[in-house]
Amino acid sequence: MEREVTDILESYVRDAWWAPDAGASSVAVLDASTGEVVTHVSTSGIDLAGALDHARTVGQASLGALTFHQRALLLKEFAVALTARKEELYELSKRAGATVRDSLNDVDGGIGVLFTYASKGRRELPNAQVYLDGPVEPLAKDGSFLGRHVYSRLPGVAVQINAFNFPMWGALEKFAPAFLAGVPSLVKPATPTAYIAEAWVRILVKTGRLPAGSLQLVSGPVPGLFDHLGLGDLVGFTGSASTAAGLREQAAPGVRFTSETDSINASVLGPDALPGTPEFDAYIKQLLVELTTKAGQKCTAIRRAIVPSAAVDAVVDALRGKIAERVVVGDPHAEGVTMGPLVSREQRDEVLRAVAALQESGGRVVVGSTDAPDVLRADGTTGPAPDGAFVAPMVLAFDGDAAALPDAVHDVEAFGPVASLLPYRSVDEAADLVGRGGGSLVTSVATADPSVAATLLARTAAYNGRLLFLDRDDAPTSTGHGAPVPHLVHGGPGRAGGGEELGGIRAVLHHMQRTAVQGSPAMLTALTGVWHQGAASRSDKHPFRKPLAELRIGDQFASPLRAVTLDDIETFAHFTGDLFYAHMDEEAAAANPFFPGRVAHGYLLVSWAAGLFVDPAPGPVLANYGLENLRFVTPVSPGDEVRVVLTAKQITPRETDEYGEVRWDAVLLNQRDEIVATYDVLTLVAKTWDEVDAGRPASRPSEAAEVGA
Amino acid sequence: MEREVTDILESYVRDAWWAPDAGASSVAVLDASTGEVVTHVSTSGIDLAGALDHARTVGQASLGALTFHQRALLLKEFAVALTARKEELYELSKRAGATVRDSLNDVDGGIGVLFTYASKGRRELPNAQVYLDGPVEPLAKDGSFLGRHVYSRLPGVAVQINAFNFPMWGALEKFAPAFLAGVPSLVKPATPTAYIAEAWVRILVKTGRLPAGSLQLVSGPVPGLFDHLGLGDLVGFTGSASTAAGLREQAAPGVRFTSETDSINASVLGPDALPGTPEFDAYIKQLLVELTTKAGQKCTAIRRAIVPSAAVDAVVDALRGKIAERVVVGDPHAEGVTMGPLVSREQRDEVLRAVAALQESGGRVVVGSTDAPDVLRADGTTGPAPDGAFVAPMVLAFDGDAAALPDAVHDVEAFGPVASLLPYRSVDEAADLVGRGGGSLVTSVATADPSVAATLLARTAAYNGRLLFLDRDDAPTSTGHGAPVPHLVHGGPGRAGGGEELGGIRAVLHHMQRTAVQGSPAMLTALTGVWHQGAASRSDKHPFRKPLAELRIGDQFASPLRAVTLDDIETFAHFTGDLFYAHMDEEAAAANPFFPGRVAHGYLLVSWAAGLFVDPAPGPVLANYGLENLRFVTPVSPGDEVRVVLTAKQITPRETDEYGEVRWDAVLLNQRDEIVATYDVLTLVAKTWDEVDAGRPASRPSEAAEVGA
Repeated sequence: MEREVTDILESYVRDAWWAPDAGASSVAVLDASTGEVVTHVSTSGIDLAGALDHARTVGQASLGALTFHQRALLLKEFAVALTARKEELYELSKRAGATVRDSLNDVDGGIGVLFTYASKGRRELPNAQVYLDGPVEPLAKDGSFLGRHVYSRLPGVAVQINAFNFPMWGALEKFAPAFLAGVPSLVKPATPTAYIAEAWVRILVKTGRLPAGSLQLVSGPVPGLFDHLGLGDLVGFTGSASTAAGLREQAAPGVRFTSETDSINASVLGPDALPGTPEFDAYIKQLLVELTTKAGQKCTAIRRAIVPSAAVDAVVDALRGKIAERVVVGDPHAEGVTMGPLVSREQRDEVLRAVAALQESGGRVVVGSTDAPDVLRADGTTGPAPDGAFVAPMVLAFDGDAAALPDAVHDVEAFGPVASLLPYRSVDEAADLVGRGGGSLVTSVATADPSVAATLLARTAAYNGRLLFLDRDDAPTSTGHGAPVPHLVHGGPGRAGGGEELGGIRAVLHHMQRTAVQGSPAMLTALTGVWHQGAASRSDKHPFRKPLAELRIGDQFASPLRAVTLDDIETFAHFTGDLFYAHMDEEAAAANPFFPGRVAHGYLLVSWAAGLFVDPAPGPVLANYGLENLRFVTPVSPGDEVRVVLTAKQITPRETDEYGEVRWDAVLLNQRDEIVATYDVLTLVAKTWDEVDAGRPASRPSEAAEVGA
Repeated sequence: MEREVTDILESYVRDAWWAPDAGASSVAVLDASTGEVVTHVSTSGIDLAGALDHARTVGQASLGALTFHQRALLLKEFAVALTARKEELYELSKRAGATVRDSLNDVDGGIGVLFTYASKGRRELPNAQVYLDGPVEPLAKDGSFLGRHVYSRLPGVAVQINAFNFPMWGALEKFAPAFLAGVPSLVKPATPTAYIAEAWVRILVKTGRLPAGSLQLVSGPVPGLFDHLGLGDLVGFTGSASTAAGLREQAAPGVRFTSETDSINASVLGPDALPGTPEFDAYIKQLLVELTTKAGQKCTAIRRAIVPSAAVDAVVDALRGKIAERVVVGDPHAEGVTMGPLVSREQRDEVLRAVAALQESGGRVVVGSTDAPDVLRADGTTGPAPDGAFVAPMVLAFDGDAAALPDAVHDVEAFGPVASLLPYRSVDEAADLVGRGGGSLVTSVATADPSVAATLLARTAAYNGRLLFLDRDDAPTSTGHGAPVPHLVHGGPGRAGGGEELGGIRAVLHHMQRTAVQGSPAMLTALTGVWHQGAASRSDKHPFRKPLAELRIGDQFASPLRAVTLDDIETFAHFTGDLFYAHMDEEAAAANPFFPGRVAHGYLLVSWAAGLFVDPAPGPVLANYGLENLRFVTPVSPGDEVRVVLTAKQITPRETDEYGEVRWDAVLLNQRDEIVATYDVLTLVAKTWDEVDAGRPASRPSEAAEVGA
């Protein structure tokens, strides 16, 4: 094992490692399997107000100097650095009870979040510092007053309070969107796994690429932290619902508080998913995974298996079989262990107390047992592990009518390898049971019947942050009930905390303020970096001859008029094969409610527009890779004339290529200056261009394959 | 005056008018100008739990039976009904102190919100019951597992607690988006103007078009209401920050609570906007409007006029002049009155107390006076009105360094015709002053200098829900500092409540839960009503021959291959004039990083695709009105072949026309089945079609002009 954990964990504040006084009181952190001391934590003497101030000044300034794309590329560097030291993080995680399979969720999952945000940040955000939400809203008939929604980053610090179960994924899924938004993070890990958080932070620091003040780590308690928070700051909390409620009250009114709390998630076996169907098998497999991964210590784990009453016995039998076949409980350091201990003996006792409460409310343990299990020890021997935090996977069955089931099954969370089995008689009853959880992070449904799925969606979507529908088509590729993916929102209403994390760019925007900005076209153009119809334009030189170094938004080309004849329409029709009657048959066309008679093909007009605006010789415009928002507004009849006005609307240079995207506003007009069509033309344009040595971009783009991106 | 106010106001609960016992204790509501009793309010004996239950059962069911478009059309009917009785509402509003100009904000403003949501609901929402947010997220490489964000309505009730100042606009801007989302409303007006709320509700009820349980009105106090709220319910509160904080604590964790509270909004005069500039004039005019409209009783009014220190005297002089010239304080029933009383004597006393606090902290009254003004009475005489709630417009000036200004100017709100005048020396100082408001609904800036605007945007956007930039271009058409528009979000961070209302469809989504839905393409297709790539398709008959009555998502047309020759490229180039070198010059094309050599024009391919999929004879497909998301993925060389696969993706029948929109998924492939291009084709398709009498749609569309919509 390369990494040695220090006797007392350091914090990383104000861009330096900080250790408490040697004599300060501290808390011991124990190995989950053996009870040996791993390290101690203490924050005695730490200057939290100073750390927050550092984030708000130095951190805001250094992140504020970067664009979304530049931050995204740094996230990629961090992901690469962590990937290189993955094995070391796996080893360390074993001390917290995590098997290598568990680390695929935590370590690789966390790295995956960084890669995803690195990618989405460059594909879905502009290479700029503000984000425009939604289209322009015209607020005056003459176009002189417009509205737009602009997201700009919050001016404070993102305090991230993480749970013990995912010291990497749980921290990085908060850090990545904050970083991408340009908001500095202050990370507070949970004590039992704080040494794993310290490890990934150390790796990031060692890259030398962390912008000053952008990341700080407080390895230990943060008393009084909330007293220093105010408008512009955020708190992202993961943990228990009760702690969340307490913290929310401590937060000053202007603090943006998000919580993602453990919830009593459900998994429904559809009435059609009988034993023998692929959906039944997928359901059992998923239930096993959710029971045993991280020893069930997941906010998203299945706590309530809701199954047709006739299928209860089959589910129990199938699950027992799978457990006997697949589950080896033990110290993750031992070969062959598939389920580790809980993170601590306190957690073990907590889980056993919850199981007892479920039993008291009528639950019968039908799979597993509350007895301490024999385990596979690190040395390869099997037997009791009195100092380890082990429990066996357990399922409790409840009988009776759905409506009469005790509140405890919807309420008491055993945060370990424990689930309740609840019978239902109708799909509506199953939906009611899901809703009684009071708001969940996720519910999954195994069914191949769209009508079952539709009923459950309609009845339970409002109670869930995520719904997974498992059928024979997606079971082999499903990312699983318990696995949030960075592309989709994670969080849920009510009991689940009421917040949202992840969901791609949505999580970045959570760190920003949406402001409605009203102004003239010229002012909105100046403020957003995107040209707005009505703002000034320049026609000094054909804009297709300008590389990015020279091109500015508002650069415009206006073509002369070109007449459209019936011959043109006929020629185009026969060339393309598009003999639609609106172009070919005067009487039939005139009978169509939208056309005065035969009209030119829309595609003819757009093709001609290109002919009117294209500059034929090699130049900085390398390719037209697409077109958006095309609308045909006024039909064009034989005898009409058309012209095009093309204006540079948005310029997005790429950080890692010698070119960038340019979006052009295209307006087709007729001889009466009526708008014929509007659209955006998407092109790739070289950053520089040497007209003397024409025919070659000044340097060759590196990723030609991305043209279709 | 047509309308007579009853001696005791009725409530509208469970779809019936309800009156408290005649003997119940009640509160008198007085005429703002004269102090005469207008009516009484009481909710003694009302069954609030029953009203909520009615909304959650009957209201949810009746709204749930409608689509977004059907609800939108009902909003339009309500708007029309209110418009017909506008004069009556103006008259009634005078009793609360509102001039007709004030009623343009409240009455016409409220009706405008209904019209806007009626229009946006049909243009921006599908004719369905769920809303898809963002694109498909592929979660498996083989396309078998996808993710999508689905908004579905909350299952509870929207409790809307309104402020006294906008009994119509303030209520309707909450009601319209809730109704459109499909969530029933329970409206609680403020006592001083409850009779105006009762009036508009009565007009809506009389239309006979309110779905059962969709709207209830509680005219009076709602003790214990919050005890009955839980997960799935919403509270929208407008009023003071302190009341909001108290209510937020009472709300159970699962209740979605939004507040929009009075804030200490700012208006900045740019350093360039010197006396004599159009921006200076616009600034003064706006300041006057904000001081006097609704007698300054607006959450969005300007409380802090932040001006260059050198311009303070000029601002005071200009404002005094305008007030002398334009402002006539009096009973709105009298001809010529431009500013009415405050809503009540309690409010008047409250405002005078706040002015005294500002004076104590160093403010000097430089415009107006705290003395009770002489007023124009209803009978045309002028003099004191001891029983009316009148105050004069006032401006208090503060001196000294921006940093040293007392907290009171950023903190104390005089909710009347009162503003503070704060001097600044640099744009950064002005930005600091804006931020010290602790979060505002709106800040406006008068400047023609984009760099001033850019600095203020960057420094203050995070502290504001809305920023208005006023310059010579938009001053004549600006909707004004104090006027939220339904298209843009209304609300602000921190002191302003931290919530968002309006903003077009954003406010509808606030009443819905966003759920990440994962599943196979077939399941997502079944659940969303939108065809997903990979789901089953049908090719029984050319889909262009199917009217909406017959067409189903997944109906598909797959064309044969068509070969592309160099001749075709030449022909197209010369026909269109598009002689771009990538199509015309082998050597130059090969030197381009994205092309193997001469390639076909993208527009040629798209035009051919239309030729391949179009069915020429008259049929139910009436027009191709646009195209979206076109991406060219693989270049096509001479000798390649292309084909197109077209699949019905989304069908949106119109409620008020004999046709609807159909969105088609188009994929262009080459002879190696590589994707050449992808896009969506947008068409208008008749609901029915009689093939025997071909050449005519079964009935003629009514609004042909909307083709360009």
